[in-house]
Amino acid sequence: MRISVVGLGLIGGSMALDLKKNGFASEIIGVDINEKHCEEALSIKLVDRILPIDLALEQSDIMILAIPVQHIVKVLPEVLNMVKSQVIIDVGSTKQLTSESVKHHPSRGNFVATHPMAGTEFSGPTAAINNLFRSKAVIFCDVELSSSEALKLVSDLYFCLGMPIINMNSQEHDLHAAYVSHISHISSFALALTVLKKEKDAQNIFNLASGGFDSTVRLAKSSPEMWTPIFTQNAENVLNVLDTYISELIQIREAIETQNTEALNDIISEANKIRKILKDPR
Amino acid sequence: MRISVVGLGLIGGSMALDLKKNGFASEIIGVDINEKHCEEALSIKLVDRILPIDLALEQSDIMILAIPVQHIVKVLPEVLNMVKSQVIIDVGSTKQLTSESVKHHPSRGNFVATHPMAGTEFSGPTAAINNLFRSKAVIFCDVELSSSEALKLVSDLYFCLGMPIINMNSQEHDLHAAYVSHISHISSFALALTVLKKEKDAQNIFNLASGGFDSTVRLAKSSPEMWTPIFTQNAENVLNVLDTYISELIQIREAIETQNTEALNDIISEANKIRKILKDPR
Repeated sequence: MRISVVGLGLIGGSMALDLKKNGFASEIIGVDINEKHCEEALSIKLVDRILPIDLALEQSDIMILAIPVQHIVKVLPEVLNMVKSQVIIDVGSTKQLTSESVKHHPSRGNFVATHPMAGTEFSGPTAAINNLFRSKAVIFCDVELSSSEALKLVSDLYFCLGMPIINMNSQEHDLHAAYVSHISHISSFALALTVLKKEKDAQNIFNLASGGFDSTVRLAKSSPEMWTPIFTQNAENVLNVLDTYISELIQIREAIETQNTEALNDIISEANKIRKILKDPR
Repeated sequence: MRISVVGLGLIGGSMALDLKKNGFASEIIGVDINEKHCEEALSIKLVDRILPIDLALEQSDIMILAIPVQHIVKVLPEVLNMVKSQVIIDVGSTKQLTSESVKHHPSRGNFVATHPMAGTEFSGPTAAINNLFRSKAVIFCDVELSSSEALKLVSDLYFCLGMPIINMNSQEHDLHAAYVSHISHISSFALALTVLKKEKDAQNIFNLASGGFDSTVRLAKSSPEMWTPIFTQNAENVLNVLDTYISELIQIREAIETQNTEALNDIISEANKIRKILKDPR
């Protein structure tokens, strides 16, 4: 199986690594508009060779679009215009706009919309790691619009990455992703900004970070290239959940200001319920 | 060296484990008003025996107060009333009120105010682990009020735990702790509350959590027994930094709502600067 990966970053690169290692891919063709990324990907053997996107498509069985979501909506229709029997996957973090961009495309069946729920705060080809995806969930969206052959192939691919598949439509996906993933990033970006503004002594941040700051702020290292388009594409859902988040903070603020220990105990006990869910809700 | 640990939870228990293991303590005496915790601590050999606080003090060289901060301000003056040559340490997360509670005590010199900057989201004797403190910083507060003998002994103790010592006065401590540690916990509690409210399907939270939620929400598992008194004791500083946090969120909200990608890019790039500091600012 020959696979081309468009976008040689953390996700595309990590998929390339695992798919080659476990034998699902016999060859990985890399595509990236960033020449430095192409060179890096070649030198660390993330990909076997680099081609322009049209030639890569011609020579591939599967093409994975692992580029920021605002580029997916442009590139995906172009790729589907050229497609023959190849299967196209995107791995973007928002799904509604992508879905709409090819809704009526005659080759829509060749495309499977997926979102592997894995990542780190690092980016670029050198961020790619083995086993990033193992035992994490992958969301398939709008599967009724994909051909059964394409679905079968993409299911096999994610099976090889060790990912259980969950089905949702694009609307549901974007809603749940805003609730659980996108808001986490916003809370973390705001936390980094706050501490950078309030705490002028970098040494203090470093020394005190083990008091909890380091884990909550980890996501604030994530790149604007990836996250700006996610927030703007999924604005309605993100704003909705962000408003709830701000109102929860205001409630906590109120309890602290009035020294209402009972209310604070209740609020924290309620928040503790997340423990049960993250353990295993099944 | 005989050490008594008052409060057999995560911090007290983990100190007991390491100090016994590395030979700094020949015996650990446990003190806790919670009988179940006493039994657990004995059965997992966290402590050698259990005594009431007054007898424990009589038989100890060092007493560590590892109880929630609202209890420290009550227990510490009582302990200092009984003290002879023993050295008393607290390990609380706020320092100003504690400091004031014994400011003019004739035995103030026997007391060293410390804050080891380490922890996990778990609590109780069974949460105690080895090497919790290694290479994390410990803050010493108001060292000019401690006797040089007491300071020497407590420095040795933390050296044995592998912790570099940083000096601050209590006011500075509470300010910096609010900036870096306390606000992280608030952001995490609010995140847990938001997701629990918006996302009714627990399975979705579990499946999507690897999208970043799991790391930002880790601290939301922390107990109200510990955190309610920290927030109320350190209210002024916490409210101040919380207001900055909320205003940062509102700025992000504004940029998303107006689809201002340039502003969002700037905001995220600014937040990314935390990367440099957390790596190593020295």
